Amino acid sequence: MSALPITDCCDRNPGAGIPPDDALVAGVLARERRALAKAITLIESTRPDHQERAREVLAALLPHTGRAIRIGISGAPGAGKSTFIEAFGNYLIDSGRRLAVLAVDPSSSLSGGSILGDKTRMESLCHREEAFIRPSPSAGSLGGVAAKTREAMLACEAAGFDVVIIETVGVGQSETTVAGMVDMFCLLQLPNAGDDLQAIKKGIVEIADVVLVNKADIDPKAAEFTRVQWKNALALLRPVHPQWKPPVLAVSSARRQGIAEFWHEIEKYRELMEKSGEFAAKRQRQALDWMWNLIDSGLRHFFREHPAVRRDLPECTEAVGDGKMTPTAAAYRLLRDLD
Amino acid sequence: MSALPITDCCDRNPGAGIPPDDALVAGVLARERRALAKAITLIESTRPDHQERAREVLAALLPHTGRAIRIGISGAPGAGKSTFIEAFGNYLIDSGRRLAVLAVDPSSSLSGGSILGDKTRMESLCHREEAFIRPSPSAGSLGGVAAKTREAMLACEAAGFDVVIIETVGVGQSETTVAGMVDMFCLLQLPNAGDDLQAIKKGIVEIADVVLVNKADIDPKAAEFTRVQWKNALALLRPVHPQWKPPVLAVSSARRQGIAEFWHEIEKYRELMEKSGEFAAKRQRQALDWMWNLIDSGLRHFFREHPAVRRDLPECTEAVGDGKMTPTAAAYRLLRDLD
Repeated sequence: MSALPITDCCDRNPGAGIPPDDALVAGVLARERRALAKAITLIESTRPDHQERAREVLAALLPHTGRAIRIGISGAPGAGKSTFIEAFGNYLIDSGRRLAVLAVDPSSSLSGGSILGDKTRMESLCHREEAFIRPSPSAGSLGGVAAKTREAMLACEAAGFDVVIIETVGVGQSETTVAGMVDMFCLLQLPNAGDDLQAIKKGIVEIADVVLVNKADIDPKAAEFTRVQWKNALALLRPVHPQWKPPVLAVSSARRQGIAEFWHEIEKYRELMEKSGEFAAKRQRQALDWMWNLIDSGLRHFFREHPAVRRDLPECTEAVGDGKMTPTAAAYRLLRDLD
Repeated sequence: MSALPITDCCDRNPGAGIPPDDALVAGVLARERRALAKAITLIESTRPDHQERAREVLAALLPHTGRAIRIGISGAPGAGKSTFIEAFGNYLIDSGRRLAVLAVDPSSSLSGGSILGDKTRMESLCHREEAFIRPSPSAGSLGGVAAKTREAMLACEAAGFDVVIIETVGVGQSETTVAGMVDMFCLLQLPNAGDDLQAIKKGIVEIADVVLVNKADIDPKAAEFTRVQWKNALALLRPVHPQWKPPVLAVSSARRQGIAEFWHEIEKYRELMEKSGEFAAKRQRQALDWMWNLIDSGLRHFFREHPAVRRDLPECTEAVGDGKMTPTAAAYRLLRDLD
């Protein structure tokens, strides 16, 4: 077991103060890990002056972003996400690439960090210079966590990482949120027939670009059965994409099986999508959706903080709840408060 | 075939002017069909002065609403929604009840009215004094259509209808939208194994309080098979409700089988939910959700119409789309325009 404190492993809470913005930007662009870690700390900070600085830093980094491939990896607890990412990450590094692993986990503030928060996980990966691992920001709503992760992703790209993996656990809307910020969304499943129904139910079939049946070494027959089931479910339920039929791969993190094939599919996907222009078009849509999400939540905040709304909202809420005022009348009155 | 013009059948486009608000309110409360039809025309109007008057009329009607049971009925085209509603409606009327049938159909503006718009449908029901049938408002987005249907529902309740049915076709989000305005949501299915997967995929399993397998007379074996499949799917996928396990009924509109059983389930559901307080709690949640939906879309409108936003939005949208500005920076700048 390593005796390193968690900050050394995960680049969290760098402790020392944050250097001036110019130095920070230069450090990130020079691929200094400490500078990147501090830039992300700035991005995650809730202090208004930090947020102001984070916007400046990101604006300076922005021209240097966009070159990485962004991969989302999701799976239920126990599907083996960490060991798979570790195996995949070591494969990437061994073939000359650098990777960053970030996380979107809205449950981490409750559970104290269910993914990436444990320093004993991804043990071998987090000691490699070519990997940068950062746990999920521990505060706030899914939207807040996701916004910060998205910006951390941009910082990682500016620091020259070739692959950015966003890990998420299958809780609520987190999978859809992550799918909305990556180029390719991968679903990690166990050889277990029940899982695919849950995924169908949650609408994940629509967003999975690759399905991985993990731990295939334990029971190869069950894995093959699950693989075929997924293949059928995808053929039946996924909207037809002219270019891409999501592959289903049996993989084993323990035996490092299927890892190279997974990377091969990613490269094939990127090549196809870049050729058709869909790669850039998707990123553009994602950026604009993100902008509008931020605007919508900003508008809600603006609304709730407006003095006249603060005065009238409790009364209107009560009247609507009691059936004494129609929702339309209440909304009309409250919106007129803004004038 | 009836020679009645469509307006007589469906109470649409009443032609003559709308009476003053006091007379309109009195007419609706006196259960006059023409007054109700005109009140709904006012509700559906997009003219600002009509909207102002609609708010006044609804405010006056509101104390007289809330006594009906609100039932959503959804199903794919061809599932037999109209004939089922006709059979069910005639059953209700024969047992002394009055019913109103409204529709939420966001596709009607494109197709020229795919549900309830055809006067040859529900032929027997629309000639009965105890039934009021109104097609989907033909203009606007799903949200706009739904808002008007919700208010039309309140007007129908004030006019003393005991049962309000909101029919919808399984297009996009319309089912979730209708489920958000009714007490009980019913899904009409054909004896066809493929349908249930589609319903699972679209998240309808979560919102169905009753599943009806229609046209059971044609192939009783297939109907029974589908019924059992649905039963299993619901048991597996629906979140556990302490009080209500959604029943799956085989019905036949042609032979009027299962209609009384369906009504019995509705009464059982209402009784259970009223006892636990969940009936009123659900309506309260729905009304507040509705208010916030209206506020959110009002805020978007307010935002887009703001002079400074109108000036900056095109530039910000382009910069974000081109990757020259982060979504956060764009959102921040545009929201500051409001100050």
